[in-house]
Amino acid sequence: MNPEPPPGEGSLLVLPVHGIGEVTRAADVAAMIADAVTLEDGDVVVVTQKIVSKAEGRIVEIDPDDPAAKDALVTSESLRVLRRRGDLVISETRHGFICANAGVDLSNVPYGRAALLPVDSDRSARRLRDRLTSLTGAHVAVIISDTFGRPWRRGVVDVAIGCAGVAAVVDLRGSLDANGRELLATELCIADEIASAAELVMGKDRSVPVAIVRGTDPTWARRSSVAAEIIRPPSEDLFR
Amino acid sequence: MNPEPPPGEGSLLVLPVHGIGEVTRAADVAAMIADAVTLEDGDVVVVTQKIVSKAEGRIVEIDPDDPAAKDALVTSESLRVLRRRGDLVISETRHGFICANAGVDLSNVPYGRAALLPVDSDRSARRLRDRLTSLTGAHVAVIISDTFGRPWRRGVVDVAIGCAGVAAVVDLRGSLDANGRELLATELCIADEIASAAELVMGKDRSVPVAIVRGTDPTWARRSSVAAEIIRPPSEDLFR
Repeated sequence: MNPEPPPGEGSLLVLPVHGIGEVTRAADVAAMIADAVTLEDGDVVVVTQKIVSKAEGRIVEIDPDDPAAKDALVTSESLRVLRRRGDLVISETRHGFICANAGVDLSNVPYGRAALLPVDSDRSARRLRDRLTSLTGAHVAVIISDTFGRPWRRGVVDVAIGCAGVAAVVDLRGSLDANGRELLATELCIADEIASAAELVMGKDRSVPVAIVRGTDPTWARRSSVAAEIIRPPSEDLFR
Repeated sequence: MNPEPPPGEGSLLVLPVHGIGEVTRAADVAAMIADAVTLEDGDVVVVTQKIVSKAEGRIVEIDPDDPAAKDALVTSESLRVLRRRGDLVISETRHGFICANAGVDLSNVPYGRAALLPVDSDRSARRLRDRLTSLTGAHVAVIISDTFGRPWRRGVVDVAIGCAGVAAVVDLRGSLDANGRELLATELCIADEIASAAELVMGKDRSVPVAIVRGTDPTWARRSSVAAEIIRPPSEDLFR
């Protein structure tokens, strides 16, 4: 047995980043973050999809009073529609994520506009991480988060749609549990858990688009993990 | 506009609780927690299902080499089976949760035993909260967490199966987004997000069965919210 760790050992701090201004097309989001907070090695910087989409110009005009216009936009952003009820569409995006309305979102954008998901959210995460590291010298990870619903459970939660520098999924197979038995088939989606933790400090009005998660397990650092790893292959999925 | 909050304002601390000993039947889990950590008003105490099940005597004997025995146990713990593939069963528990193997779990229990879910995990949470408050005087909330898989996304995450003193789901309808537009149909499952945040400090071998989440929004306190609220009514569910 290891000696008992001191109190607070292994704790996690989740910091909202206040003072990120309005993000517009081609904005340097990494510089805005670096100006607003002092980053440390090992920090996971969680950035909401909305500001990444704004910076990447993924904002389109839409007539908010025309349901057919929204439906056409959702369809054009979808590879495949899984379910449809009323104006709710559950579909698979080009990335492979399954979510409501293919991620097309009319909240927190000006009236008459809609935000689309980044074209390649893992690439967006990687670019943000590279730029943050070059601006600050800190070795950080980046997760791009979005808000997804789930079957069977009410309420949305934040999950990872882009990932750089931290494992998306940690494989515990081969680890032993507290009784010394091997943990079988236990893959933890830590990227989703980190995104959810970050959401808790983002404010009721979602006005805080960035949070820092400080103190995650250093063995979770990865050079080339991506959120695409979270997508369950259709052949293994019992609910398509 | 409100003035910019000071740095760190609204941050969250997630503390692993070390030193919880082996939990046996009829153990006073609240007293074990109160001995191991100093609780503060507003803390959310996240307790893994496994130690609650042990304290409540929800451990049964099982022949680990007999797949039929496990299958019979899972069936007896299920209201209804949704999917079956190989030895994986996705079913609905009596609580209404949909998860793998009806929550029957052979990890972190002695060989030849299986842990079942608490009979009424919201009642378990309420009793733990009442006992923690009477032992410590601190007004805390309790979430009982378990580890669930999800359709479409690889990796498990921790979610709430019992809840006392904190909202399971927060309804943002009627709130305004950062652009002053009403947020529609935005219910956040903060209990699941808190459970996920807690999991991040529980250790690779799951040896830390309790974590404190300190600094959650005080407006989330509730006298009578329960995790049963998270269960999506079958009539609203597109994936049954």
